Amino acid sequence: MYAVIFTAKIKHTDNEYFATANRMRELATSYGCVAFNAACEDDKEIAISYWSNLEQIKVWKQDPEHKAAQALGKTRWYSEYKVQIVRIEHEYDAREL
Amino acid sequence: MYAVIFTAKIKHTDNEYFATANRMRELATSYGCVAFNAACEDDKEIAISYWSNLEQIKVWKQDPEHKAAQALGKTRWYSEYKVQIVRIEHEYDAREL
Repeated sequence: MYAVIFTAKIKHTDNEYFATANRMRELATSYGCVAFNAACEDDKEIAISYWSNLEQIKVWKQDPEHKAAQALGKTRWYSEYKVQIVRIEHEYDAREL
Repeated sequence: MYAVIFTAKIKHTDNEYFATANRMRELATSYGCVAFNAACEDDKEIAISYWSNLEQIKVWKQDPEHKAAQALGKTRWYSEYKVQIVRIEHEYDAREL
């Protein structure tokens, strides 16, 4: 299992920011994203999407609607952001810790 | 580079919750944690710590003060939580996307 960790510093939000965030979740799911988790606090945003394989992530990265959202994110909504593609090595929940 | 993704559903916070969160960051740094990023929104918490190797994470997991905090987390602060240990495969920032 893989995950894409998106971390950003928000400079501005508007209606389109929220609509785009929702639309991107929908679109990611159509590319194979199996789970999604996100939290915003003050000007900080963390969003993690989970995927079965790297190929799906690569195709998702190239989607034209996703690329348009990335461009808007860069110019309008975020002062900085970072994307990390990670492989899950181990996983525990509260019962095992 | 590795990361530990902690995701939780908060059921209750108190002064000790915030003090412990700060103390855990301090303590993790002393075990080799090189960066930290977290956001809470409503009852959701996401915290990501970054590490150079898996051995440091293993030792950190066994620290007695950390184990006491985990026990408190389980009984007092969180209704559920999950820990994922991940390896960073690729990383991009806004300049490259």
